[in-house]
Amino acid sequence: MGLRIGALIVDCTDPGRLARFWAEALDWVISRDVDPEWVVEPPEGSREDCVVADLLFIKVPEPRSGKNRLHLDLRPEDQQAEVARLEALGATRADVGQREDDPWIVMADPEGNEFCVQNAHPPTVRAEWLRRYEAYRSTSGP
Amino acid sequence: MGLRIGALIVDCTDPGRLARFWAEALDWVISRDVDPEWVVEPPEGSREDCVVADLLFIKVPEPRSGKNRLHLDLRPEDQQAEVARLEALGATRADVGQREDDPWIVMADPEGNEFCVQNAHPPTVRAEWLRRYEAYRSTSGP
Repeated sequence: MGLRIGALIVDCTDPGRLARFWAEALDWVISRDVDPEWVVEPPEGSREDCVVADLLFIKVPEPRSGKNRLHLDLRPEDQQAEVARLEALGATRADVGQREDDPWIVMADPEGNEFCVQNAHPPTVRAEWLRRYEAYRSTSGP
Repeated sequence: MGLRIGALIVDCTDPGRLARFWAEALDWVISRDVDPEWVVEPPEGSREDCVVADLLFIKVPEPRSGKNRLHLDLRPEDQQAEVARLEALGATRADVGQREDDPWIVMADPEGNEFCVQNAHPPTVRAEWLRRYEAYRSTSGP
């Protein structure tokens, strides 16, 4: 492949604080911890390692201005449990005009960056994903 | 894992236009093409399938306001070739105050969302990534 997504860059005020939050949130590791750039990435040996984009937090002088144009959508195994865990880590509930019956829960990280915690995938979807993933692992070269 | 990144959501004016651009840029596929939400994801059977976050473009009423707080960092095999290809697809060069000697090239997609095309990884880094990836594929369960 000629082009891949290597990282998602997050402009921020306190990269260390956000890196610690997101590393805990995703169970990833901090692989660079020197201002102005902190990096959080999947642990070596995990399914995501060398495949999924890193998160890079970079200190910038300007503050956030309004709702982010890009945001992350997180997929939990247990939505309520993950929302409670994220709140304990420093996330807050956010209001971006969502409806009460929307299945996702809108939150914000410690600097106010919005993200959503979706409902859990139903077992049929998880089984199909696992089937496709195992088919790839057993038959394809990297 | 209890929580994974399922998608990166991009608020936009014309989700079809952006979905087509990003599908071409990454050599991914459009898996949903109905306004207000278009989805672009890695092709089934690829290394990224069911692992890497989808891109979801959603139509919103408000325009962009200033530089995005989050942006993508793309890793090419050939930086100059990919920049030329992206320009042909509708991307433009962008100025966010980068220095002339920065190794990355700052661009913007057809709605002005900034992204960077990094320099190519040196062969030693690519080899290490391949080693780690193959080690995972040969030894770990999903």
